[in-house]
Amino acid sequence: MVKEARRRVKIILSYDGTAYQGWQIQAGRPDLRTIQGTIEKGLTRLTGAPVRVIGASRTDAGVHARGQVAHFETESSIPTASFPAALNSVLPQDIRILAAEEVPSSFHAQYSALGKSYLYTIDRHQVPDVFRRHYALHVPYELNLAAMQRAADFFVGTHDFRSFCASGSSVKTFTRTVTHCQLVEQNSWLYLKISANGILYNMVRIIIGTLLEVGRGKLAADAIPSIIAGRDRTLAGPTAPPHGLCLWQVEYHEGF
Amino acid sequence: MVKEARRRVKIILSYDGTAYQGWQIQAGRPDLRTIQGTIEKGLTRLTGAPVRVIGASRTDAGVHARGQVAHFETESSIPTASFPAALNSVLPQDIRILAAEEVPSSFHAQYSALGKSYLYTIDRHQVPDVFRRHYALHVPYELNLAAMQRAADFFVGTHDFRSFCASGSSVKTFTRTVTHCQLVEQNSWLYLKISANGILYNMVRIIIGTLLEVGRGKLAADAIPSIIAGRDRTLAGPTAPPHGLCLWQVEYHEGF
Repeated sequence: MVKEARRRVKIILSYDGTAYQGWQIQAGRPDLRTIQGTIEKGLTRLTGAPVRVIGASRTDAGVHARGQVAHFETESSIPTASFPAALNSVLPQDIRILAAEEVPSSFHAQYSALGKSYLYTIDRHQVPDVFRRHYALHVPYELNLAAMQRAADFFVGTHDFRSFCASGSSVKTFTRTVTHCQLVEQNSWLYLKISANGILYNMVRIIIGTLLEVGRGKLAADAIPSIIAGRDRTLAGPTAPPHGLCLWQVEYHEGF
Repeated sequence: MVKEARRRVKIILSYDGTAYQGWQIQAGRPDLRTIQGTIEKGLTRLTGAPVRVIGASRTDAGVHARGQVAHFETESSIPTASFPAALNSVLPQDIRILAAEEVPSSFHAQYSALGKSYLYTIDRHQVPDVFRRHYALHVPYELNLAAMQRAADFFVGTHDFRSFCASGSSVKTFTRTVTHCQLVEQNSWLYLKISANGILYNMVRIIIGTLLEVGRGKLAADAIPSIIAGRDRTLAGPTAPPHGLCLWQVEYHEGF
C-alpha cells in the first residue's frame, strides 16, 4: 500500500444507535459492539493499518447522532475526499459518513469543540408511531408544555450542573454554559433542542427527565433554580431513556 | 371466557414491514413471519379462539403501512374499544393498532374499500439518511422532476393497467381508476402520492420504477400513454424496491 505523509482527517457522521453499546470502545470488552470500534475496524480494513478514532461526544448506548464529529490520523493514499464513499462501502448501513476533510494536527474532535447541540424527541400520539419507535420516547399522558418551557428557561446560562450529571463522572468542573434550551411542539411531536459549550454525563437525559416531571405536575417549574443550586443529583428528576436522544451538531471555530 | 354475540370489528393499524414476509399468511409456510399471522396469533391469545383477520391490502414483503384496515369476527367479551390497547400489549412493537370499531357484518375490509392511497418515499441525499433507511429508496443520481410529474399525470384516469401489473395476478379486470398521482419535493426528499379505486399487484412499484426511468432520461414522459395502451408488462420500467412503499389510507363509504 502506498504511504503518504501522516495527516489528520475530520469526519462528520450519523448513526442509528439502536444496535450499539454506545460510541466508545470499552476496555476488556471486545464483544461489545460500539460505533467507535465499528469505524476503526472499517478504517483498518480500508487503510491496512490500525487506526484510533476520536469522537467529539461519547454517546451512550441507544443514543443516535445526526452530526457526530470524529478525527483520525492516516498515512493512507486514499484521497481525503474519498473517505466517505470508501468507508460507507465497508460500514453497516446504520452508520453513514457524511463528509471528510483534512484538518491541522492541532484539531481535536473533542477538545476543539466549542459547543454541541442535542435534540430529544417525544412522541405524544396515543399509540406510538411505529416508524420512529427507536428514535422517540413515547409519552402518552398529558403534559403542561407552558410549565415545561418555563422550567427549560432556567437552564439557560452558566451554571454548576452537578445536579444534572450522573455519578461516576470524573470531570474537573461541573460548570457549563447552556446557550439554548427550547421546547418545540409539532402536532403530536415534542422536541427539546439544547445547546451548550459542553454536556456532562447524562446531562441532557436528566434535564429531559426533570422537565417531564414538571410537565406531569410532579415538580413545579420554579423549583429548577433551587435544584441547580443544590448541586446534588438526587434533587433532579430521573434519567430519560436514551433512544429519544440524538447528537445533532458539533461546533468548532471557523477553519476547523 | 364469557361469550358475547358474534360481532365484526374493523381495525386501523400501522406497521413497519421490514421484518415481515408481507401481510398475507402463505399456505403451507407457517415458518414465514407475516403481519396477518402475527395479528391472528395475538387475537387468539386475547380471545381464546381462532380468528381470521382480513386485510384491505395484501402488502408485499418489506412494504409498510400507516393506515391499513382489517376486520375480524369475535364473540369475545373484550369491549371493542379496548381492542387497540389489548392487542398492542401482546403484539410486537413494529405493529400498532390505532383504532377499533364495531361494523355491520356487511363490511369487508377488502371488498368494501372504495379506494387506497399509497406513499412512495425517495431519499435524494448524497448519503442516505440512516434513520429512514428502511422507509425510503435511496436515489442519489440526478432526476428530471418536471419530466417525472408530466409522466405521472398520464396515469390519472381510468385505464387498463396491465402494463403495470406483475404477472401471475388472477384479477378479472385490469381496469382501475387513478384519482391522484403527484410528486412532492421536500428538500432532499421526494414523495409520490398515488390514490386509486384499486391497485393491481405491484402496480405502485412498477409505476415508480417507470417514473424513475423517466427521471433519469432513459424514457420519455410522452411514452407513458403508449406503454399504458400496449397492455404488456415488458413495456413498463422495473419494479421499484418494496421498502420505499407505504400503504397510507383506505377509504370506505361513510358509516363504515
